[in-house]
Amino acid sequence: MPEELNNADQFAWAKSMWQPFVDQAFEVKERDAAPKDNSPDGILRRLQRLEDERAIEHTFRRYHACYDAADLDAILSCYTEDAIQINARGTYQGHEELRKSYRWLTSGQKFAIHHGTNVVVTLDEDDPDHATLNSFWISTVMTHEDKLVLCGGTYIHRMRRENGEWLIEKQRITFNYMADQDYIPRDLGDRVPRSAGSVTTRDLVEEQYLLT
Amino acid sequence: MPEELNNADQFAWAKSMWQPFVDQAFEVKERDAAPKDNSPDGILRRLQRLEDERAIEHTFRRYHACYDAADLDAILSCYTEDAIQINARGTYQGHEELRKSYRWLTSGQKFAIHHGTNVVVTLDEDDPDHATLNSFWISTVMTHEDKLVLCGGTYIHRMRRENGEWLIEKQRITFNYMADQDYIPRDLGDRVPRSAGSVTTRDLVEEQYLLT
Amino acid sequence: MPEELNNADQFAWAKSMWQPFVDQAFEVKERDAAPKDNSPDGILRRLQRLEDERAIEHTFRRYHACYDAADLDAILSCYTEDAIQINARGTYQGHEELRKSYRWLTSGQKFAIHHGTNVVVTLDEDDPDHATLNSFWISTVMTHEDKLVLCGGTYIHRMRRENGEWLIEKQRITFNYMADQDYIPRDLGDRVPRSAGSVTTRDLVEEQYLLT
Repeated sequence: MPEELNNADQFAWAKSMWQPFVDQAFEVKERDAAPKDNSPDGILRRLQRLEDERAIEHTFRRYHACYDAADLDAILSCYTEDAIQINARGTYQGHEELRKSYRWLTSGQKFAIHHGTNVVVTLDEDDPDHATLNSFWISTVMTHEDKLVLCGGTYIHRMRRENGEWLIEKQRITFNYMADQDYIPRDLGDRVPRSAGSVTTRDLVEEQYLLT
Repeated sequence: MPEELNNADQFAWAKSMWQPFVDQAFEVKERDAAPKDNSPDGILRRLQRLEDERAIEHTFRRYHACYDAADLDAILSCYTEDAIQINARGTYQGHEELRKSYRWLTSGQKFAIHHGTNVVVTLDEDDPDHATLNSFWISTVMTHEDKLVLCGGTYIHRMRRENGEWLIEKQRITFNYMADQDYIPRDLGDRVPRSAGSVTTRDLVEEQYLLT
Repeated sequence: MPEELNNADQFAWAKSMWQPFVDQAFEVKERDAAPKDNSPDGILRRLQRLEDERAIEHTFRRYHACYDAADLDAILSCYTEDAIQINARGTYQGHEELRKSYRWLTSGQKFAIHHGTNVVVTLDEDDPDHATLNSFWISTVMTHEDKLVLCGGTYIHRMRRENGEWLIEKQRITFNYMADQDYIPRDLGDRVPRSAGSVTTRDLVEEQYLLT
């Protein structure tokens, strides 16, 4: 693959902003409308499919949990060793390059929360160990200079199963917009309802994350 | 149905801002707590229910993928021929009216991304071919004049199965707020980590969508 | 439990901003990669697990539907009698304290919409009646003074099954940021596509909720 890494034509799965989402949606439409196999084997396969789709979504959820935690090793655990990521800066390949990229990204973030939405998972029909997960995202990020921004875009993932684990093999991230946010410190006022216990999130959560 | 289209009283499923969501939630509560049928037939029905709920969600995901792609035919593929949509402007009926409405909506958008959240699907207990899908939404839209807005609201869908496909039969869209966003062009800076490949999202995605 | 309510050390499940999310993600990773039991009993358990995870998510969806509806009784129906909630103000215990807290919260909101995202549910391996549901949230709130804000944070839930219903037993809510929004009244313009019916959302939804 390395020798072709600079040829945009090979990235058919990542071509066009919205077409990959529309194409997947119509594939799913056909599949959902197909007759179901009610034999014991068929039932087992259908259950397995639901579990696989859920497991693939779990890897995506882990990616965001680890990203927001700025835990580089944990982020990399979501990727195959030979994974590539195409973003606005280039095509990153392998754990070493991805680590540098996520170190750069997370080092600029005092707080970041990434919402993955509209998740759709499709297993390849001809290969039980490959699948696609597409999603949209919307995030809020606070920099170390206390600048708050809202941003958003999309994800395309090609997933591969290795030793029973679903990992990201190829990933396209579009970063479509960023907007300045007018941050308001939270003032609870003096009419807060009384509580039995005095422990608050301030006692449990690291100071840097509780902006308000 | 046409003769009653101007009588708000007939739209019981769409009455009140939040009550349809609360009512559905309590229906689901009863259903989830009911004893389960562990017979072979019961297991098959339970599996089929999970698959149906997933298929119904897929139609909703297709709707947003096609809406953001501004693909009018693809949007209409999500609706029954006699579908109605109630929004802030009126009650739109059938593919021809819906097409004009979505042409009007999408023609004003250089970029739009719709996040569907809090999706809950319930199959009708007395009719295997009807269901309800409720959801919230939050979206970012950039106009052709480069005005960026954040907006949000809710969806109620009555779904109907036709030839094995789950389609939108009735839809209420509330558009609850819109807020101006202070767009920031993205500056990657000069300390971007190096990557093995030089292909970026700019090589893969249509220019109009990559705002930053 | 009451006597320990002021000891932050007992809230191990709620310690640290992101670690609970990362820990859950790695637990899920192990579980998803484990060999599957294809015996009839195993298949039934696997189906039941998918249904339980869905039922637990439904309680969380009910919580948000009832919160946005400002329906206090309905909100409380999501909690066990002895539930505790840790937030930025304190540790609230039992329905009476939670009722006062949600009355205070909802009374300040003309309109609120809470998006729960990145939901991950894990059943306890050693106890069929306990589970964890973690999620992120992003919300838009309009006050009675027509001040619009965007805010967000995270949820951790410990869930308990009582009489077949999954309820919130312990809840940590982090409120991580709030940002002022520049509200834009929606102007539909004079080129709105014509519709067969004249009923609009204004005929169906309470005035206070339709801000635009």
